[in-house]
Amino acid sequence: MSLLVVGSVALDSVETPAGKVEDALGGSATYFSAAASLLTGVRMVAVVGEDFPDQHVEMLRSRGIDLEGLEREQGRTFRWSGRYSTDLNQAITLDTQLNVFERFDPKLPAAYKDSDYVFLANIHPALQLKVLEQTPERKFAGADTMNFWIEGERETLEEVFRRVDCATINEAEARDFTGESNLFRAARKIAELGPKYIVIKRGEYGALLWHEGEVFFAPAYPLEEVADPTGAGDTFAGGLFGYLSSRGTHDPDTVRQGIVVGSVAASFNVEDFSLRRLLDVTSDEISNRVKEFVKMICFDANGVILN
Amino acid sequence: MSLLVVGSVALDSVETPAGKVEDALGGSATYFSAAASLLTGVRMVAVVGEDFPDQHVEMLRSRGIDLEGLEREQGRTFRWSGRYSTDLNQAITLDTQLNVFERFDPKLPAAYKDSDYVFLANIHPALQLKVLEQTPERKFAGADTMNFWIEGERETLEEVFRRVDCATINEAEARDFTGESNLFRAARKIAELGPKYIVIKRGEYGALLWHEGEVFFAPAYPLEEVADPTGAGDTFAGGLFGYLSSRGTHDPDTVRQGIVVGSVAASFNVEDFSLRRLLDVTSDEISNRVKEFVKMICFDANGVILN
Repeated sequence: MSLLVVGSVALDSVETPAGKVEDALGGSATYFSAAASLLTGVRMVAVVGEDFPDQHVEMLRSRGIDLEGLEREQGRTFRWSGRYSTDLNQAITLDTQLNVFERFDPKLPAAYKDSDYVFLANIHPALQLKVLEQTPERKFAGADTMNFWIEGERETLEEVFRRVDCATINEAEARDFTGESNLFRAARKIAELGPKYIVIKRGEYGALLWHEGEVFFAPAYPLEEVADPTGAGDTFAGGLFGYLSSRGTHDPDTVRQGIVVGSVAASFNVEDFSLRRLLDVTSDEISNRVKEFVKMICFDANGVILN
Repeated sequence: MSLLVVGSVALDSVETPAGKVEDALGGSATYFSAAASLLTGVRMVAVVGEDFPDQHVEMLRSRGIDLEGLEREQGRTFRWSGRYSTDLNQAITLDTQLNVFERFDPKLPAAYKDSDYVFLANIHPALQLKVLEQTPERKFAGADTMNFWIEGERETLEEVFRRVDCATINEAEARDFTGESNLFRAARKIAELGPKYIVIKRGEYGALLWHEGEVFFAPAYPLEEVADPTGAGDTFAGGLFGYLSSRGTHDPDTVRQGIVVGSVAASFNVEDFSLRRLLDVTSDEISNRVKEFVKMICFDANGVILN
């Protein structure tokens, strides 16, 4: 099946207790595509500036990512600068320069309009709606968002959620969006808008899936060293949607598997800065960590004897 | 096997968004015993004052809890008063009156000295050591603690950890105690002191077990309504140690099962104030939630196909 992602491509400057990078490759569409391309073909819609290094474009293309939808505009590439202190769950934004991303208006190449799986990374919800309008044949769409849109573009965001099958949202954002401090009530409220699958991202606590009242928990893979959490959520989504697209289905069992694959992909991504580790990881490594995952959550359930 | 707990019996005044209670039955040994007595016999060592209602004593006895070690001293019972706001992970202590608990000096009845399983709830680590000295035949001991002892009685607490098989500790306390922001490194450091099993309690995020470098994650059972989180950690420990004692073993597979049983017990406890729900819950209800637990964490691992 074909998978489309629309989001940002950025040059990130990031500092964490493990080190720092400047103008390193980043952006939601980049992390998503790098992860998804481990599993399936990806079509990317995004914008970069004149200063965007050709080597990055070549690298993405070498992974089989379809870049017909990657526009190059006059001006500079979107830049984000942030810092993580010892709490690696929380980035402190130091600077955001939207540059060419400010005028981003996703126009899909004709060949993308038959995309089966569509992921709307965190961009203005009005742009997310435009992408949905241009993908009439889609079988399954997911949307991510952020606090900025929850506060400033609530009605448009609700319209996005009404039209997608899966909402991916951070824990704190789910609470903010619904006004519910209880996460399961929050998930239920979002589901009432439309999406059947609610995926709540909890940073180091993993992710949970809410689907028709049933909850599935995936912990974050345990790592003793985390270099850089940037892009973990988009890598997770790339693993999830890449898996669904590669399987050509999105029944609850496959979505659960996809959440584990996404968690594993994210666990590799945070091991190094930018996309270094993600571009390096093999499908065997993913597979091995999926197996380790099983051991971390399984117990002898049939053997539980209560007197 | 015989199970001994040493800890507090208290009268708690608690306010949460769901309501409030005054001078309600509480205390670590109480919650622990109420949960463990669903699974096995329990011996309780604690102290109450002259004002402690007889009905509570009768209730504990009616559950088969051995109260030979429950001293009644001159003075008032230990009282704790606290409030939870919408963040139910964090209690705000309004008042603590140690009363008879201030002079608590656990002396075990002769009949308790052959206890096989021993749980040292959160009391002064010097008292925890005294209990260990009085239980020379124990097969498995666990110790809980709190920030107050980590800061003020670090060396004594380290001595406790050197002598027990299992440390139960909150996530933030594990980080404070070890100076490690990474939880898995923190667990490793605690294990280096002695305990083979490190159980890290993460509130609404569940619990994790660290055992010889292997991690097991148990989420918290999802509830749309939480009335009162007081005692959740002690109820969890009661379910865990009650299960181990009832099975008469503490190999890693049984500890994993025990952690799930403890999580389920805690999930019932938080559904109502004080011990109301815990005293009401049946072993069938526990069993049903254990089965639901399996569904919340299992996925078709063998079916994961990565192209």
